Amino acid sequence: MSTRYDLAIVGSGAAGISAAINAKLRNKNIIVFGSKDLSAKLIKAPIIDNYLGLPEITGKQLKDKFINHATAMGIEVIPEKINNVYAMGDYFALIANENNYEAVSVIIATGVEFSKTLPGEFEYLGQGVSYCATCDASFFKGKVVTVIGYNQESIDEANFISEIVEKTYFIPMFKGDYALNPNIEMVQGTPVSIKGTDKVELLELKDREITTDGVFILRDSVSPEQLVPGLEMEGKHIKVTRNMETNVAGLYAAGDISGKPYQYMKAAGEGQVATLNAVSFIDDKRKNI
Amino acid sequence: MSTRYDLAIVGSGAAGISAAINAKLRNKNIIVFGSKDLSAKLIKAPIIDNYLGLPEITGKQLKDKFINHATAMGIEVIPEKINNVYAMGDYFALIANENNYEAVSVIIATGVEFSKTLPGEFEYLGQGVSYCATCDASFFKGKVVTVIGYNQESIDEANFISEIVEKTYFIPMFKGDYALNPNIEMVQGTPVSIKGTDKVELLELKDREITTDGVFILRDSVSPEQLVPGLEMEGKHIKVTRNMETNVAGLYAAGDISGKPYQYMKAAGEGQVATLNAVSFIDDKRKNI
Repeated sequence: MSTRYDLAIVGSGAAGISAAINAKLRNKNIIVFGSKDLSAKLIKAPIIDNYLGLPEITGKQLKDKFINHATAMGIEVIPEKINNVYAMGDYFALIANENNYEAVSVIIATGVEFSKTLPGEFEYLGQGVSYCATCDASFFKGKVVTVIGYNQESIDEANFISEIVEKTYFIPMFKGDYALNPNIEMVQGTPVSIKGTDKVELLELKDREITTDGVFILRDSVSPEQLVPGLEMEGKHIKVTRNMETNVAGLYAAGDISGKPYQYMKAAGEGQVATLNAVSFIDDKRKNI
Repeated sequence: MSTRYDLAIVGSGAAGISAAINAKLRNKNIIVFGSKDLSAKLIKAPIIDNYLGLPEITGKQLKDKFINHATAMGIEVIPEKINNVYAMGDYFALIANENNYEAVSVIIATGVEFSKTLPGEFEYLGQGVSYCATCDASFFKGKVVTVIGYNQESIDEANFISEIVEKTYFIPMFKGDYALNPNIEMVQGTPVSIKGTDKVELLELKDREITTDGVFILRDSVSPEQLVPGLEMEGKHIKVTRNMETNVAGLYAAGDISGKPYQYMKAAGEGQVATLNAVSFIDDKRKNI
């Protein structure tokens, strides 16, 4: 049986790390999913002037301060991508590529840097569309698969897929070093829609089509509705109360994903508020078991 | 004619200073009212563990970092107590002891360390009860006045009053150095209620009564309802939206006064959100003039 954490935090930017340090201070058993660099947005920031107490700091310096703070408190960031969060009644199940996790409460702090979904993407999810190579590649043995890759890690996943399926196309959505297996065919183009009848049959690009049985879409982050089925949104943001509660009991959101302004200080404050409310939820839940 | 500021910030804790630096970055003409020490609560904090990026910092150290940040941006804190904020339609009037100020938008970030009001206090406000010695002492020429003083500055105000009125009682509500004029009678006791018919006649203490024409109540901060007539509350907190808007257009609240948890990071984040929304309000207002 896997450990059931008190709190799982999905995202390691200002909101996620602030949530984590507050949860540690409340002696909660937590797990934090994110990136070793904490936040792609943060490390790209040139000078941040409005993080109160740390004037004229670069994003990299602020990231280092966040890491030092987290490390001093024994917080580790697990570099796994969470594909789904399911409310199971008494707990949440968090589905990553290789592992599943359980937690009493969850904070979503993934930021807003997710891409728009493709027409047909949700329609054919599970019918040829997948977000997880290690989960689903085996369903495509002997078939044709197209990988739409948004980051460096998608190269590894495409290589993994290519060892299982008959034919792999790779469409890079980022600039980088494409160290693809020689049996993968790289296609430069802009995906427009996914088509089929009851299953995926075609990926339409701007200026060509690819006949394909499967489409793996490998983004940095998944959109919240995709992450948590039934989650109530307000435009592209998760709808939250002043206590950072979502419409799902025990599930909180913080940072950019919960609304504008997109600011580090606001995100850190919200991470704190989310955790303190999650802690009440966890304590109530543990009391009733 | 006095300067009309873009934004007046009442309070100089984490919320107020965060609001100020964000407003400065948006090139707004601001004025900040508070204390040279920024926040009585902050400087008393022993070790703060959860201000993300600044682990294990003392309240005094964090206060110094806030001051350095503010000073680097040319922000000055005006040590005047604001007694009232009135919505005048196109602007707000802020009434201090000696000066009045005008601003297009206001952020209330006064914290929650205000004392309970006394029974009779609101009832007799303007009918013998006053919060401002310099404003109202002259109305009590030849009369008996009782000063309930919550801080060191109230000594100066009591001395000022005693030079104008016939007889001054002083009830100290703090421990300190009471350098009162010899014509002031100090009374140790706990005020219980203010009584009268159409005007104040009596201050009831726990174990005695004082016959008095006026009661000056000199606290560190005034309660929000007292500060802003018509302000909608939620218990002891100002009711705000996720954008830190109150029920009064152009008036925002941030920090402890806008709700729990009482935390520096949350307050700083809210100060930022309040300012960014106030900036939109100000820009719209200035556009329409």
